[in-house]
Amino acid sequence: MLTYDVTPYLSFFSFAFMAIKILITGGTFDKEYDELSGKLFFKDTHVPEILERGRSRIKTQVRTLMMIDSLEMTEADRDLIVSHCKQCKETQIVVTHGTDTMEATARKLGKAKLNKTIVLTGAMVPYKFGSSDGLFNLGAALAFVQSLPAGVYVAMNGKYFTWDNVRKNKSSGFFEELK
Amino acid sequence: MLTYDVTPYLSFFSFAFMAIKILITGGTFDKEYDELSGKLFFKDTHVPEILERGRSRIKTQVRTLMMIDSLEMTEADRDLIVSHCKQCKETQIVVTHGTDTMEATARKLGKAKLNKTIVLTGAMVPYKFGSSDGLFNLGAALAFVQSLPAGVYVAMNGKYFTWDNVRKNKSSGFFEELK
Amino acid sequence: MLTYDVTPYLSFFSFAFMAIKILITGGTFDKEYDELSGKLFFKDTHVPEILERGRSRIKTQVRTLMMIDSLEMTEADRDLIVSHCKQCKETQIVVTHGTDTMEATARKLGKAKLNKTIVLTGAMVPYKFGSSDGLFNLGAALAFVQSLPAGVYVAMNGKYFTWDNVRKNKSSGFFEELK
Amino acid sequence: MLTYDVTPYLSFFSFAFMAIKILITGGTFDKEYDELSGKLFFKDTHVPEILERGRSRIKTQVRTLMMIDSLEMTEADRDLIVSHCKQCKETQIVVTHGTDTMEATARKLGKAKLNKTIVLTGAMVPYKFGSSDGLFNLGAALAFVQSLPAGVYVAMNGKYFTWDNVRKNKSSGFFEELK
Repeated sequence: MLTYDVTPYLSFFSFAFMAIKILITGGTFDKEYDELSGKLFFKDTHVPEILERGRSRIKTQVRTLMMIDSLEMTEADRDLIVSHCKQCKETQIVVTHGTDTMEATARKLGKAKLNKTIVLTGAMVPYKFGSSDGLFNLGAALAFVQSLPAGVYVAMNGKYFTWDNVRKNKSSGFFEELK
Repeated sequence: MLTYDVTPYLSFFSFAFMAIKILITGGTFDKEYDELSGKLFFKDTHVPEILERGRSRIKTQVRTLMMIDSLEMTEADRDLIVSHCKQCKETQIVVTHGTDTMEATARKLGKAKLNKTIVLTGAMVPYKFGSSDGLFNLGAALAFVQSLPAGVYVAMNGKYFTWDNVRKNKSSGFFEELK
Repeated sequence: MLTYDVTPYLSFFSFAFMAIKILITGGTFDKEYDELSGKLFFKDTHVPEILERGRSRIKTQVRTLMMIDSLEMTEADRDLIVSHCKQCKETQIVVTHGTDTMEATARKLGKAKLNKTIVLTGAMVPYKFGSSDGLFNLGAALAFVQSLPAGVYVAMNGKYFTWDNVRKNKSSGFFEELK
Repeated sequence: MLTYDVTPYLSFFSFAFMAIKILITGGTFDKEYDELSGKLFFKDTHVPEILERGRSRIKTQVRTLMMIDSLEMTEADRDLIVSHCKQCKETQIVVTHGTDTMEATARKLGKAKLNKTIVLTGAMVPYKFGSSDGLFNLGAALAFVQSLPAGVYVAMNGKYFTWDNVRKNKSSGFFEELK
């Protein structure tokens, strides 16, 4: 039998079919209004709907890890995010996340030195409420994840920040570099 | 008198304050519905409103060059776009444009070899109509213009294409590479 | 055989289950934007969606007669509307209609002396475009059809007009009484 | 001096110019999302905006009495609503109100026997959140207040209920008659 070692080609094929991974963790991005209780809550992620609305043609793999307000994230939750980023075969990952502790998760991912392009994003207004920055931010995050070199970034307010130089200004709600 | 030549520093300062130029040319992106005639028409650009909705903090300079359907663009119109891109001091430029002849303007800009990062984008549904890809596309275009090297690109459907390898598929409405 | 004449009770039962008929004829109310051609067109009526959005609990029967711009209505089309209003068992009918010739259909219905409460309504902006008066007008029309005595009315701009005292002001787009 | 008693004519003139009074008390109808705190709160009423969106041409007088969740209404608050309804010169009044205790305020108004047409309405979803019944309900309430005889009514879910035969079903969120 004549065998041929095709493993060098496998990575080519997997690259040719490599999607961008979108990991969902919740945050204001995906909150909805529950009319019976008058409270905000989580149901299903709207990311597939947003990708359709944006008429996106990028190959994506959407996976919901959790649906929580980032103020309620524990270190165990952040470890879960890091381990999914590490173990998945994709090398380009967008993570939707609550804005309040996005920088903490970014820091954990940065320190893990994963050699992948990982972009965290979120929204200040729930996508379902109409006047949302969610659609704009997801478009930006998906663009950055395709064009930035390996590293961990936060994409908010139209810009990108490296994981070790970003924080959310709690008074204004905008993201900025550390001084 | 002792003088000091500060010109080398001026470009540093202007770079530090360099905005992203957004040139508006119209297209479906900015169309509106005129209830008295029942027709679509152009009024003012919505780009400033979109930047606000996206809670954008990038320094931008918005300039309306024309408000037309790109099917009505003449070579003189395209020459105007090229000359504005050439003459403005900004080195990062987003051009909003009708999708029907976006590739023609991209080609003209590419051949001009301007040594700037220029990204064309548009929308399939008017921003004013609700179910628009405009917000998503502008977020993507602004991200690409910050992260891609000098060159001319089309940003549609979540991806970017180089000016010499793109066309709009008239049947599906999606953008794709030339085979 | 002992028989019992139940006919006097039949009308009671039918009244107990009598819905409000909603006859759809098209008009700006139901127009949509076709992104491939860039034109406005008709697909399916949005009235069921609007009733859901209004959390309506009225019993309604929705029937699409045609989906056309009222400028293209012929006398045969109007005759069809009149005959449906006459033949259906419901005594409360809302007709969605283009605003341009709504008064012509109202006049035809008024002269038919049908002894039912018939309310015509429409919209100046397509429901699908967001900034629509459609939702407001349908709420008003359904309210008027439940509370006004038998007659033919136009419900637009928050008010109601009798069929013999209404016209659309073509300059302003608003409905008014004849002087 | 020859005098002429014109008082009989005054009421004619005031009737000719009589507006519909719209009293605002808050409720889900007018809630907004505060992106910094992530909570729902009240700012200004949206009723003028809704009347514009509905292209309403009815003469209305909008007056904000309070902006609260109806669960927080006290008897003093309800007394204030009753006294404003009593003292204003208008004989047709719409009251926007939270749905949770709308029936309590309706009852208080009904027992006051004011000999005016008063219609209470509200919304299950904030107007600002897009998928709102507010626009539909206000169109209905304004229609009912013009066509129903003197009395106190609740207009929700497309219907009207008399003040002494209505309650909100807390499980379903819909309004219904008392059995």
